[in-house]
Amino acid sequence: MTQQNTSSSFTLRAVGQVRSALTDLATAPRQADEGAPPAWLDFDPAVADALAGIQPGDEIIVVTWLDRADRGILANHPRGDASRPRTGVFGTRSPHRPNPLGLHQVRVAAVEPLRLQVDGLEAIDGTPIVDVKAVLDADVTRR
Amino acid sequence: MTQQNTSSSFTLRAVGQVRSALTDLATAPRQADEGAPPAWLDFDPAVADALAGIQPGDEIIVVTWLDRADRGILANHPRGDASRPRTGVFGTRSPHRPNPLGLHQVRVAAVEPLRLQVDGLEAIDGTPIVDVKAVLDADVTRR
Repeated sequence: MTQQNTSSSFTLRAVGQVRSALTDLATAPRQADEGAPPAWLDFDPAVADALAGIQPGDEIIVVTWLDRADRGILANHPRGDASRPRTGVFGTRSPHRPNPLGLHQVRVAAVEPLRLQVDGLEAIDGTPIVDVKAVLDADVTRR
Repeated sequence: MTQQNTSSSFTLRAVGQVRSALTDLATAPRQADEGAPPAWLDFDPAVADALAGIQPGDEIIVVTWLDRADRGILANHPRGDASRPRTGVFGTRSPHRPNPLGLHQVRVAAVEPLRLQVDGLEAIDGTPIVDVKAVLDADVTRR
């Protein structure tokens, strides 16, 4: 395979979307531990087989595409707090970044055909889902 | 904004690439805690400002695009072990999945202009980088 270069681009396809009582970006919590409600993840029938084996109680990482983010912002004041120094977005969890991927570690509460209910998710209703992954020990033991 | 639907697609652009002694997918470790070597993350000059503030010792999550993965695989035997039951890829960390995003939690070892050196990274040389994020307490305390 030829060497990649940084002008490469790739096509990400939504595999589902978030269904949540959160509909307003302005009032949504910034992080899941700040009062985010349960949500449903609705999946496209085309990816049904990819959900096989996921059980209530599983910890998963949901990857979303934060489609309302500003991809041109490279640095900002963390949490919009002007008293905090401007920081490059790669050192933060700002939704605004060149590729606005959201990572959400959640616990599966219920499993239905083509749907998973999860605990506290801060993404708003309609947010596209692009991937779901198992949590590894390596994600949580390396601090 | 109009409601998203699951036929949506999005353009992901590489912001950098992995520089590693690992060049062979067949012999690369499957996970970072299985003998992955240090690596350099080389960034595109266009995203230099997004790196501001990242320091040696920081824990970050690197998001890669696993460009050699098979996007058509929805279920497989974990770790390629035929004795294990076929599992949907959303319940695993298989690189093969509809959107082959890789998540790598690593520690920053050194910072140079447009480059970060990180400890154990299992991605092979040339793998495109699409995002970098801070690690949150929420990523590691919810198990």
